[in-house]
Amino acid sequence: MSNESTIRDLVTAWVDAVAACDLDAVVANHDENIVMFDVPPPYDGVRGIDAYRECWEPFFGYLRSGATFELVELTVTAGAEVAFAHGLLRCGTDEELTANPANRLRLTMGLRKEGDRWLIGHEHHSFCMLD
Amino acid sequence: MSNESTIRDLVTAWVDAVAACDLDAVVANHDENIVMFDVPPPYDGVRGIDAYRECWEPFFGYLRSGATFELVELTVTAGAEVAFAHGLLRCGTDEELTANPANRLRLTMGLRKEGDRWLIGHEHHSFCMLD
Repeated sequence: MSNESTIRDLVTAWVDAVAACDLDAVVANHDENIVMFDVPPPYDGVRGIDAYRECWEPFFGYLRSGATFELVELTVTAGAEVAFAHGLLRCGTDEELTANPANRLRLTMGLRKEGDRWLIGHEHHSFCMLD
Repeated sequence: MSNESTIRDLVTAWVDAVAACDLDAVVANHDENIVMFDVPPPYDGVRGIDAYRECWEPFFGYLRSGATFELVELTVTAGAEVAFAHGLLRCGTDEELTANPANRLRLTMGLRKEGDRWLIGHEHHSFCMLD
């Protein structure tokens, strides 16, 4: 399987794990020094795998209340040992998606190959800001 | 010079070009198919070098009014042909920076080597959302 296909499957599995609120699957392919720029603060990012694990529970509560987390588009650019991926997700409660149906959660991931495994070392999640 | 150093210089030069409102320098190292997830909409990103060029003028107006655009931290992960970089910037008017001094513009870039040149193929710019 090409690196691009491997990474596409890895990111898609991560989306599915988030949507299923399955924490062990969410963190299954992360570098221990992950730096995540998340939608809420901290402003300088969530740093390290322990902090990354801890930040998911509030979002899982939002998903369990009925919010959608669904991949719409994903583009992967892979070299032999470094790769990045960017994509768009539908993410929101029914009320939020009805109020602003074009709104998207934007996702960027940076990955590095360690031995024969690809690991996520960076994530950036955001929504556009409106005036 | 290592790929990492080359990319660090390229991203630093891009920050300096933005701060100087120098459009030709801002777009000097971009893939023509650049996809930028910017702070304001469009929700699905600014796509292609022409759209990328066009989006800068409103932001240059903001900078010319006295806003700061200053790199605080930059981390580069480079392979032989693909790389990504993530960093934090102080970005705001004096009033905005005084009101929320810890706030940061978060920046992620994805790059690909074409021949002997590194080109930026993806950018993701965002601020955290506050409740």
